Amino acid sequence: MDGFAFSQDIRVRFAETDAQGIAHHASFVVWLEVARVAYLDEFAGGYNRIRASGIEALTTAVHLDYHRSAGFDDVLTVWTRCVDLRGARFRYEYRIVCDGELVAEGYTNHATVDRTTYRPTRVPAWLAEAIRGEQASAAPAS
Amino acid sequence: MDGFAFSQDIRVRFAETDAQGIAHHASFVVWLEVARVAYLDEFAGGYNRIRASGIEALTTAVHLDYHRSAGFDDVLTVWTRCVDLRGARFRYEYRIVCDGELVAEGYTNHATVDRTTYRPTRVPAWLAEAIRGEQASAAPAS
Amino acid sequence: MDGFAFSQDIRVRFAETDAQGIAHHASFVVWLEVARVAYLDEFAGGYNRIRASGIEALTTAVHLDYHRSAGFDDVLTVWTRCVDLRGARFRYEYRIVCDGELVAEGYTNHATVDRTTYRPTRVPAWLAEAIRGEQASAAPAS
Amino acid sequence: MDGFAFSQDIRVRFAETDAQGIAHHASFVVWLEVARVAYLDEFAGGYNRIRASGIEALTTAVHLDYHRSAGFDDVLTVWTRCVDLRGARFRYEYRIVCDGELVAEGYTNHATVDRTTYRPTRVPAWLAEAIRGEQASAAPAS
Repeated sequence: MDGFAFSQDIRVRFAETDAQGIAHHASFVVWLEVARVAYLDEFAGGYNRIRASGIEALTTAVHLDYHRSAGFDDVLTVWTRCVDLRGARFRYEYRIVCDGELVAEGYTNHATVDRTTYRPTRVPAWLAEAIRGEQASAAPAS
Repeated sequence: MDGFAFSQDIRVRFAETDAQGIAHHASFVVWLEVARVAYLDEFAGGYNRIRASGIEALTTAVHLDYHRSAGFDDVLTVWTRCVDLRGARFRYEYRIVCDGELVAEGYTNHATVDRTTYRPTRVPAWLAEAIRGEQASAAPAS
Repeated sequence: MDGFAFSQDIRVRFAETDAQGIAHHASFVVWLEVARVAYLDEFAGGYNRIRASGIEALTTAVHLDYHRSAGFDDVLTVWTRCVDLRGARFRYEYRIVCDGELVAEGYTNHATVDRTTYRPTRVPAWLAEAIRGEQASAAPAS
Repeated sequence: MDGFAFSQDIRVRFAETDAQGIAHHASFVVWLEVARVAYLDEFAGGYNRIRASGIEALTTAVHLDYHRSAGFDDVLTVWTRCVDLRGARFRYEYRIVCDGELVAEGYTNHATVDRTTYRPTRVPAWLAEAIRGEQASAAPAS
């Protein structure tokens, strides 16, 4: 997808549906996290490496716009990118598509804190670089 | 709370925490729904009455800003109000507080659709009135 | 209920339903935990007191028989009792009823471990006594 | 695994962990369902085919014994087989392993009902055969 270099596929679980017969809207928030974890696996040695380095990444905001419903067993592609990394803060953006249709889009904001004191801590250089590397690879050739 | 006339208390379940030792951020999205359902009980005869009238209320957007973490067994007060009701669309706003501190705030957007055709349908008059009644009761005397 | 002295009410959340239009069977496992936490509040100073004393209570088994479905917004009464407390192990039994009908019944097994070493640790005397006190109060007069 | 011909891998999501730092025990119940759905995809044309044929498969019992904890990002292999198919009832058995260690084992009981009347309905022949075919393929040569 234009501007996105990474995606993670998610198959909607039956437990994630609700009595409207569609995937419950809170399930999407979990899928964004699954996509972030896969993203960090790909570009930064995994979320467990980040935690092992004494840092927690907190979620400070979630935004989702739902355009279409998703149903049980649908395979959704969660396009994911990290943007606006500065200091202790960064943002992920997402587009969720199914069969070529945009199902939802949104973003999450995050802050890195020291795992013991819970005080804000700059995103470590290795992580910042890993993320910037991904962004470079996603940039359109020009 | 200023500008809010309705609240629903939520006790954080152990299953709603995560390995960071705090309530998982997706849990909040479920709590907003619990608060909406309680709100509709109070002002509009309940969500089941709405469904029985042939309407589904879809969630079209979720936004949450997290200011502090919530922990297991914390009792959160979810202040809730319905705003901007027009045609087939309406919005809820929320402030979640614990021990006098703002934990999170946000909004959800909704659209009413016919339960069979899934086409947009105006919010029925009885529901619109019920909601407006609540807003009137929440308005400060002046 | 015969043989049970404690119960916790649960209102089925919309997020806990599934595309069959009923409460998802995994939701019941969470409700058993909510009931245990309420039980410990009542008889043993709360789960947080147990955790503060350096102990974790692990769940080592879950068993549930489902007799009827539960629907959105149903209020379920989860009858709960602690039985068979010995050494580091204990069991809870449950009956879940709605409108006088048995919806589900089951049990969970637990083991107490040291919170740091994760080695089995006897249930502390104060907790064992608190639990036995509850059982005495539930016993039928004879 | 001895006696099992089918398995489904599951990666533990962060949202599935709890404040004990391990996968919450209710998450396993969801994973069993994910494995069943994958199993039906493999042997019986998928759960959606079953639903399309006018049948619902209800879960009538869940049993899980937990031997070890699972952690965030662990990849679990859920070995799954269908046993004891008779009339409108059948049972699945499971063994969940991680890195060669048994993490949990259990079973679920199910009943097929007519999707409209919710009355018990024999498991359709095509489904029964599909399942028996799988069992044959899992049997050790002798």
